[in-house]
Amino acid sequence: MPSSCVSELLIEVTRGKLTECVHRGHIAVVDIQGRLLGSAGNPEFYTFARSTAKLVQAIPLLEAGGAERFTLTPEETALCCASHNGEPEHADTALAILHKLGLDESALHCGCHEPFYKPAADALKRSGQPLTQLHNNCSGKHAGMLALCACMEASIQEYTSPAHPVQQKMLHTVAEMCGVSPDSIQLGTDGCGVPVFAVPLSALALAYARLGCPDQLPERRAEACRAIVQAIRKAPYYVAGTERFDTRLVEVTQGRIIGKMGAEGVYALTVPERGIGLALKIEDGAERALYPTAVEALLQMELLSVEEAAQLAGFHQPIVPNRRDEAVGVIRPAFRLKRAE
Amino acid sequence: MPSSCVSELLIEVTRGKLTECVHRGHIAVVDIQGRLLGSAGNPEFYTFARSTAKLVQAIPLLEAGGAERFTLTPEETALCCASHNGEPEHADTALAILHKLGLDESALHCGCHEPFYKPAADALKRSGQPLTQLHNNCSGKHAGMLALCACMEASIQEYTSPAHPVQQKMLHTVAEMCGVSPDSIQLGTDGCGVPVFAVPLSALALAYARLGCPDQLPERRAEACRAIVQAIRKAPYYVAGTERFDTRLVEVTQGRIIGKMGAEGVYALTVPERGIGLALKIEDGAERALYPTAVEALLQMELLSVEEAAQLAGFHQPIVPNRRDEAVGVIRPAFRLKRAE
Repeated sequence: MPSSCVSELLIEVTRGKLTECVHRGHIAVVDIQGRLLGSAGNPEFYTFARSTAKLVQAIPLLEAGGAERFTLTPEETALCCASHNGEPEHADTALAILHKLGLDESALHCGCHEPFYKPAADALKRSGQPLTQLHNNCSGKHAGMLALCACMEASIQEYTSPAHPVQQKMLHTVAEMCGVSPDSIQLGTDGCGVPVFAVPLSALALAYARLGCPDQLPERRAEACRAIVQAIRKAPYYVAGTERFDTRLVEVTQGRIIGKMGAEGVYALTVPERGIGLALKIEDGAERALYPTAVEALLQMELLSVEEAAQLAGFHQPIVPNRRDEAVGVIRPAFRLKRAE
Repeated sequence: MPSSCVSELLIEVTRGKLTECVHRGHIAVVDIQGRLLGSAGNPEFYTFARSTAKLVQAIPLLEAGGAERFTLTPEETALCCASHNGEPEHADTALAILHKLGLDESALHCGCHEPFYKPAADALKRSGQPLTQLHNNCSGKHAGMLALCACMEASIQEYTSPAHPVQQKMLHTVAEMCGVSPDSIQLGTDGCGVPVFAVPLSALALAYARLGCPDQLPERRAEACRAIVQAIRKAPYYVAGTERFDTRLVEVTQGRIIGKMGAEGVYALTVPERGIGLALKIEDGAERALYPTAVEALLQMELLSVEEAAQLAGFHQPIVPNRRDEAVGVIRPAFRLKRAE
């Protein structure tokens, strides 16, 4: 059910006095009943949730008792939800999870890419140490999937296949949390090889509202949701890393807001105490438009204080630097959310 | 004179069966009289030409006799027009120009960034050799500007300042070639510190049509234009480098088409024998949309054969790979040019 695409101008990128580029997209803000509280563009826009689904995808592992069985630390649980920087702590923690399963790096099927965090990538190169799948930003999610294999007594072979019981469990959990039918979810393949799930933004926002405020969910699921939120509050570094927005947002709001980026311009967040979820999509996929849009939407919804926004200024209105690090422009929000009456 | 922004959907990025992202923009195709032959979106869209201006910016140096005075090779002239890869040949050639001026790398004001071509960046790191301004993709342009300082007997101090005689000459040459008044050109600052010039796309396309087919220009300018086109035909590697579209386009068409990318989603090209120029802007600045749009526009204008397009398939419809290099989607053109009757 692809939606018609009536995107709205969200972000301007200036150079000197001119707007050099624009980014369009869609925003949905909902409460735990799924009522639309705010929007831009088409809040029903149907798109892949990408890595914003990771927090939801961690639920089955906790529901299955994986945290107890493998004595997962908050750091390890947060890493299962992460698109991490590939810093040494991230790689080490992914390996620690695997060791608890009696496995090692070779069990992962996520492939390799250089650490997101450039100083970590450079340090790895200088060290002469090999780049491994542990450095893949998704290694925690994959380790969590392998842990779920153990809990479900499913084979760890082909755990990335859409037909594998673990991926079927992912699909159904995403559908339940989003309040949509599994049949309505189109699948694609992520950068790391596993299925990704397409849902309307409003449904993704609902999943995040419920994740943060799960009191109306079945008790076992509610506990899993609380454990995930709690783990990220305790160990925000492990969901992203140095200089990353997802980490800073938790730190600056002292855990009042938990957010997660996804590739190709997706963001989702929950404000647990308010029972609010937000999801957004930049239609061209640009990461540079993601955080300015998220911070601005939070401000307009009065979910973030001006003081907190000031601490996130580098994400809200980042400068455009030249190669000599002089500011030659700015990336700035240019939208006004439609608020529900 | 910013134009109203009625952009058109140009490129779709698919994942599985879904369109995950779209890129919008504008295209102008004109002849040497400036008559519009084809368009998409707003062909008068006013934006920074960025590095597409480099071929035009090389004109004053050749007009001033710089090629003879410094016995510039085709490789060196092409490098003056380049956004090069920072491969060893590029850095060496930039240094060779500087040596002919009695200068060295320290005369450049372009700043440093890692070579665009990742294997070159990695090799540099492994070698322990320092990253220098010679590796900046604009080092050839800056070396050319310093050569023009010599020809104009202007100071090499602050040659990047908008008020410097060299930058004033750049402004007036861009204005003349584009057929617009210098006053109509807004200035910004490029990544490399020098002024960039905003013009309507149709005017940028006209500059490229004239560059390739300069017979109606004053003789000295016409000779300069011919020398630039000839240098890039002879040494296409020096205008970009390994695996780069600008280089491959010249190679595949055996010099029949000369094109130049610019940052933030700008492309311009000339088809000299047809007296045609084309300029385009991706409104969100995405480089991944640039080459698919350029190849598709050339095909639709019947300026590129199907066989040539097939040799450029990796630029025309690149796959979206996952981390294991499996195709999970495709980047594909989704527009139809409006053709003049």
